[in-house]
This record gives sequence, structure tokens and C-alpha cells, in this order.
Amino acid sequence: MTFRFRHLLGIEPLKADDIRTILDLADQYVDLSRGASKHSDVLAGLTQINMFFEASTRTQASFEIAGKRLGADVMNMSMQASSLKKGETLIDTALTLNAMHPDLLVVRHPQSGAVDLLAQKVNCAVLNAGDGRHEHPTQALLDALTIRRAKGRLHRLTVAICGDIAHSRVARSNILLLGRMENRVRLIGPATLIPAKAAEFGVEVYEDMREGLAGADVVMMLRLQKERMDGGFIPSEREYYHRFGLDAEKLAHAKEDAIVMHPGPMNRGVEIDGTLADDINRSVIQEQVEMGVAVRMAAMDLLARNLRAERAGGGIHV
Amino acid sequence: MTFRFRHLLGIEPLKADDIRTILDLADQYVDLSRGASKHSDVLAGLTQINMFFEASTRTQASFEIAGKRLGADVMNMSMQASSLKKGETLIDTALTLNAMHPDLLVVRHPQSGAVDLLAQKVNCAVLNAGDGRHEHPTQALLDALTIRRAKGRLHRLTVAICGDIAHSRVARSNILLLGRMENRVRLIGPATLIPAKAAEFGVEVYEDMREGLAGADVVMMLRLQKERMDGGFIPSEREYYHRFGLDAEKLAHAKEDAIVMHPGPMNRGVEIDGTLADDINRSVIQEQVEMGVAVRMAAMDLLARNLRAERAGGGIHV
Amino acid sequence: MTFRFRHLLGIEPLKADDIRTILDLADQYVDLSRGASKHSDVLAGLTQINMFFEASTRTQASFEIAGKRLGADVMNMSMQASSLKKGETLIDTALTLNAMHPDLLVVRHPQSGAVDLLAQKVNCAVLNAGDGRHEHPTQALLDALTIRRAKGRLHRLTVAICGDIAHSRVARSNILLLGRMENRVRLIGPATLIPAKAAEFGVEVYEDMREGLAGADVVMMLRLQKERMDGGFIPSEREYYHRFGLDAEKLAHAKEDAIVMHPGPMNRGVEIDGTLADDINRSVIQEQVEMGVAVRMAAMDLLARNLRAERAGGGIHV
Repeated sequence: MTFRFRHLLGIEPLKADDIRTILDLADQYVDLSRGASKHSDVLAGLTQINMFFEASTRTQASFEIAGKRLGADVMNMSMQASSLKKGETLIDTALTLNAMHPDLLVVRHPQSGAVDLLAQKVNCAVLNAGDGRHEHPTQALLDALTIRRAKGRLHRLTVAICGDIAHSRVARSNILLLGRMENRVRLIGPATLIPAKAAEFGVEVYEDMREGLAGADVVMMLRLQKERMDGGFIPSEREYYHRFGLDAEKLAHAKEDAIVMHPGPMNRGVEIDGTLADDINRSVIQEQVEMGVAVRMAAMDLLARNLRAERAGGGIHV
Repeated sequence: MTFRFRHLLGIEPLKADDIRTILDLADQYVDLSRGASKHSDVLAGLTQINMFFEASTRTQASFEIAGKRLGADVMNMSMQASSLKKGETLIDTALTLNAMHPDLLVVRHPQSGAVDLLAQKVNCAVLNAGDGRHEHPTQALLDALTIRRAKGRLHRLTVAICGDIAHSRVARSNILLLGRMENRVRLIGPATLIPAKAAEFGVEVYEDMREGLAGADVVMMLRLQKERMDGGFIPSEREYYHRFGLDAEKLAHAKEDAIVMHPGPMNRGVEIDGTLADDINRSVIQEQVEMGVAVRMAAMDLLARNLRAERAGGGIHV
Repeated sequence: MTFRFRHLLGIEPLKADDIRTILDLADQYVDLSRGASKHSDVLAGLTQINMFFEASTRTQASFEIAGKRLGADVMNMSMQASSLKKGETLIDTALTLNAMHPDLLVVRHPQSGAVDLLAQKVNCAVLNAGDGRHEHPTQALLDALTIRRAKGRLHRLTVAICGDIAHSRVARSNILLLGRMENRVRLIGPATLIPAKAAEFGVEVYEDMREGLAGADVVMMLRLQKERMDGGFIPSEREYYHRFGLDAEKLAHAKEDAIVMHPGPMNRGVEIDGTLADDINRSVIQEQVEMGVAVRMAAMDLLARNLRAERAGGGIHV
């Protein structure tokens, strides 16, 4: 099992085989986390630093648990309350941390491209935990693993992604990954929240939920960023729920065994009906969280193997 | 040494034998923390998550040290700065964390009953680190261990609990525990801060400190919540200290060898005279903190044994 | 390799041999952090608590990484958000933590002398991570190690310290250390930012950068505290940079192989030209950060050896 990259910055550069490599290893880590002992020494001796320039309880927790379970020395840095306030630049912060010799750097940043920039400045492996509207690769990978385990395959599926597509890095990474694995992707949402050039991505666009969901295997809801409402993108929560919120009636238009996904945290009664979200026959929302830890363990393990090979003089295939 | 419960949610369901089981094991962990090496592998391979929906430096630190000394992978989540701000419900947060497969979940929450509710939704062992005005079981257990070690026994003692009883989960858990171990409990405080139904708990109520302290073996002061003052419960700090603050003169009414306790953090000169608090012949306030770590190690160890037995197919006696 | 102290509170009490002991061990820890496995068990079984009463991302991160790499159980306590808000005194906080049996206590505090006071109240080893305008010993030690590695020696060098000397604990600890190792120290800055009694320290004082830098082996820039500007100490950032900011032209007055240092975080274009800060032929700013982790590992290792010897009955030479 080898992975061709030094960093995990996005889904864009990954080929189908790269994606399968991560998911196959993640399957093994699902078993570890479900077992009697959840601890391994795969990352023992390595230092992992989580740098979150944007708060995210669940993503940071997922990376932290993943690293600790694999035996890394893990450090969280809440960069909002940090030297950035003192006027330090992103690059200075990166160089400072780099000088402490981390092996794995997990970074979330509000600006698209900031994580790529940072990766060019450091000696360690960088994992993008979400940058602006650009990419959130571990989210797309955990969604893929969830789909593959629920549906038994990750190709030739019809996946409907619903909601605020235009501002969502989750949607963007998922569109890239699902396309690469030869699935049919549909985007559903109000015209104001669909990117103008959506057609170029090889996706179908719908403004009507029932039409868009017809025959879908997977229904992936997105979180509604409340701040969009102020911007005039959406009239009201109530109106939004009426047109685009997922409930049993709308879901009935999808395939009978369609699964329901949401990256969390959910706005119950806005994007999704609460009862449906809790329906363990349809909703795989909890599985997504579980797969998140496993996918991050797999990604960090693979990147650490490359680091070690590189240091031992073997080099890596970038 | 077996413990009959899956969770530690309160003192209420515990019998005298359950309490003794925890305290006996905690005695051993006092020795570990005083030794040359403070680390054991009792919880190795397990994941502990501390979820504090209310800030508490000392209680969180105590649980964190307890878990790390026992070799668990420990993660703190400051839930005030979390997705709750994004509108996620307590239950969604609990289910999300649960999906990450923690083994031990330590929870503090401002609402009474919130921790019990959460325990019903997760697969792991839950420890209540304080919920509203309801219970704070590890505080009562550490107080009990402190008393037992200082007095040589934990029954047939006269214990005076002084201050803001009505709003205190510490008082409530202590009243339950001390009653269960067949001690005589007295409550002392202004009528506005004594619960109306105090008599139903089988306790004696005093408004006069000197009367209430007469013959007491243990004097347990409570922290005065400053916000009560605004509520009209108490005229002023000065007046409160005059009537209910513990000093050498008032303490002289208790037994000659009476010990002085306080759960911290102290308001010196409000609930208690600073010199008395520091008098190592009377005050066991530092010992309480030390016992806190030991009691939490013991509780987590016992709950983890049950988890492991359950997973190995042995089940537990709930 | 033995160290004569129970605590590391400042450079003041250290003799040249003590300083060499720490730096020699730190050299070894540089190798560990650069190696394939960055983890050792030197502090296994011990508990390290970082108490920061003043925020400092980089210093806290450095101590945290140092402790985790050496196998300690490390706990961070952000004391700004702590019981201090509830009115607890510094001493009560210290006694509370002490009762949890930490072995190593790393403390930063805004008041000069607070860390010394605290060290008198606890049973463990205390490391000063910066107290008011008093001392910041690990910063001076990491600067010393950086100089020794770059220059091949730590004596008979001319070191120019530039900027806000009067308010800087970094400057104060460096002046003490560099003097103890028999270097020539020059202070350069506006008269309002030079301590009145500077001459008593055996240093030379300059108000002109070019004069002060003439023939210097080491140029140590200090961070400009922006709040000084409001206080009328400095006319403006622009004016300050013109007179005291380090750029290639001013640096040309120093020795040809002079190195450039800065404790970080930098205000680029205020104290120092950005291009110069990034010039790896002159700037050792990243090395300083790297040496910081190594020096802290060394200091904690040495203090822990003393603790263990003391507990084994051997006592220490205080």
C-alpha cells in the first residue's frame, strides 16, 4: 500500500487508485477503533500539530483522536488566540512551527489556498483540514468511505448534493472525488447558491428537489451557513426548509434504499427534518463521523510512511 | 473489587458497598500519585473525552491528570466555544462524539439532568462532573475519602455543611453520601439559602453557626456564588462573613479535632478566614484536591473494567 | 552532568558551568528532535503542568512539545480563563495544582517575581517561562545555544541587543547570561527604552544603530511592544524603523559574518526588514525556535534528575 504524495492538500491531484489506497487502509482502522484496545504505535515517535485558524470542534477532535490512537505526540494550537493577533504572518507562524520539527501538520484556514502555500514552506507532511471555499479532502474521503460501506461500491452511483454548493469546500471536494470514481453527481439548490460554472464540472444542476432526487442512491445534504441569509441568498429558514429541506416526502423521490448524509453540525428543521436525521434505516450521519476518524488515521499513516522512507534515503514518488 | 454500574451519574443510586469499593481503590491511587513514577497502563488503549459545557479549571484538570496517569488517550473539548454556537443540540453533540468511539466521557453541564440524558444516548461510560444543581458525585467521593483518611472512619460522624446549600450540587451529593454512610448531617446557612424541603433529607437545619457547629467532627464550607448577592439572597460579603464565615472563634464550637473542608476555589474573607484555611492542623483543603485525582482514577478504572468485561461478552450487573 | 538547582527561575543564580551543563545536554536533544523518532522516555511517569497566566502560543508550544517528546504526561492550563476569574489567589491556585502532584510546573505570569513566589509554595520543580519584566531564562539559554552553534563559542563575542530594552525580560536574561560568559554586551535603542541604570550591568549604551553595531558578532533584535507607542516612548513605527529597524545597510556596520536574531513574533518592517529576516546566510531566527525545544528538554531533564535523586533520598545540592 503506497501513496504517491507528500501532503494531502486536496482531492484534485488524487487518482482513483490513490483514493482506494486511503479507503482500504481506513477500513482497517475502523476495526481498530471498534476493538477492545483502540491504540496502536504506528505514529509513535512522531509529532502531530493541529493548527486551526478557524474553530471546528468536530474536525479538530477527529484529527486529535486519530493521532493519539496511533501513538503520535499531538499538540493543538488554537491559532485564533495566537501570535496572529500580534501581527505575525501566516508564513512566519508556519516557519516557527516547522522549526519545532513536527512530522504531521493539520491545518484549517479561512482563506482558499492558504494551506497549499504553507505546505511549500515546511519540511513535514501537511493535511488540509479545510481552506476557505477550496477543499476539505478528508471530508470527501470519509463521505466516500461511508458510501462504499453502505452501498458496497463507490462507482456508478447517482449522488445528489443539496444546498449551498457555491460556498462549500465540502461540496467541491466531494464533486471532485465522486467524479473521479465515475459516479453521476447532481447539484440541487437555489440558483443563488449554485456556482455559475457548475456545468463545467460534469454535473447536472436542479432547482427542484423532487426532480433532482429522482433515482438517487445517495442524498448528501450540506450545512446552511446562516450568514448567507443576511447576504440575500435565501429568503428565510422556513422558506428554505419548504423548498430544499430534506424530509420523508421529498426523500421518497430517491431510490428506495437511498442513504442520507450530512457533514454536520446539522440545523434540524432547516436543511433536514430531525426525525429523518435520526432514522437509522436511512441516515448514515453517525457513520460519517466514525469514518472520519478512520480516514484521518489512514491518511496520516500513509503520509508518515513516506516521511520515514524519505528520511531513510528512499525518497518518495511525488 | 467490582462496581455495579455502567456510569457514575450521581451518588443517589450508590449503596454503602459501592462507595467503599471506590474509596478503597482510590486509596491505592493516592499511593501511585505520591510515588516516583505516577504512570500506569490501566486505561491504555482507551479514549477519554472531557466535555465541559461549563468552565472548571480544577475539576477538568483533575480528570485530565487522572486519565493521563492511567495511560488513556485523553481529549478535552471546551464545549462553550464549540458547535453549540452553531445551533447543534446537546444530543447531536453527544451522538457525534459517541461515533468517535470514546470509552470514558466526562461531562459537566449547567443543566440538571443533562448528563443523565446524554448517558442514555451513548455506548460508553459517562462520568458526571457536575450538572446544574443536581449532583457532583466525584466531589462527594473525594470529600468522603478525605474524611475517612483524616478521621479513620466514614460513619457516625457529625458533619456540618455551611453556606449556600440550596444552589449547591456539591452539598446535595454530600448529603446523599454522608446519609448513606450513616452520619449525622447538619445544614447551616441563611434561610434564603437552605432548601425548603431540607428536613425530608433527614438533616438538621441551623441558622446560627455556633449552634450548628457544636460538637461537629467535620466542618464543610461551601463556595459562595457571588451572583447570589445580586439576587437578594445575601445582604453583603461583609455581613455574610460576620454571620456565616468560618473563623477560629466559630470553629472553637466544633470538636477540638474537627477538620475544615472547602471544595474550592475559596473566597478568602467571605466564606472562610484565610489563616484558618492555611492551618494544616485543621484544614484538609489541599488533601481534598489530592484525593480528587485519586477518586477519579478509581472511578474511571472501575467503569473501564465493566466496559471491558461487557465487550468480552461477560456483561455487567446494571 | 549535574545541575545544582531545584528550579529554573532565572539566569541570575547560574554560574558559567551551570549554563554549559544545560547547553551541552541541549545539543543532544537537538539530535533527538532531528532524528527519525523524536520520542524518549526520560520524563515517563512524571506530570508536567504548563500554567500560562499570559498567552504565549510559541513558548507554551515549545514547552509542550519538549515535555511530550520526553514522555511526560503534559497538561496545559490556560489560567486566564480559569478560577482566577472567580477571585482565587495565585497562591491558592499554586497550592491546588501542587496537591495534584505535578513534577514539573512551567509558569508564565505578567508580574515580576510571581514565579519565584510560587516556587516557594510547591513541592515540584518550577520553570520560569517569563515573569513580568524580570526574567525569561529559557529564552536566554536558547539564544546562547544558537550563538554557540553558529559562532563555535559563547565567550569574547560582541553582542548588540537592540530595541525596547527597558521593558524586556528577554533582554534582561540575555544581558545576565552573556555577561556571565564573558561577552561584551551593547544596548542600542532610544533613550526612553534604555533602563536608567544600564551602566551598572557592565554594558555599553548606544543611541545610534550604526555606531552600536560596529564590529558586532551577534545582532539581537527585540520585539517592539506596540503598546509602548501609545505611551509616548516612540513617535511612530515608521520613524522607529528608520532609526532602529535592522536592514542590510545598518547590518553592514557589524562584522561580515554577524548573525541576526529575534525572539519572535516579528513585526516585519518595524524592528527588522523582512528580506533580512528570511536571509538564511545571516538570520538564525528559525534556529532559535529549534533550540528552544532542545533547551527546554534539557532543563526539564536536569530538574527531573534532581527530583528523582531527592525522592530516592540522595538530596540535591541547592
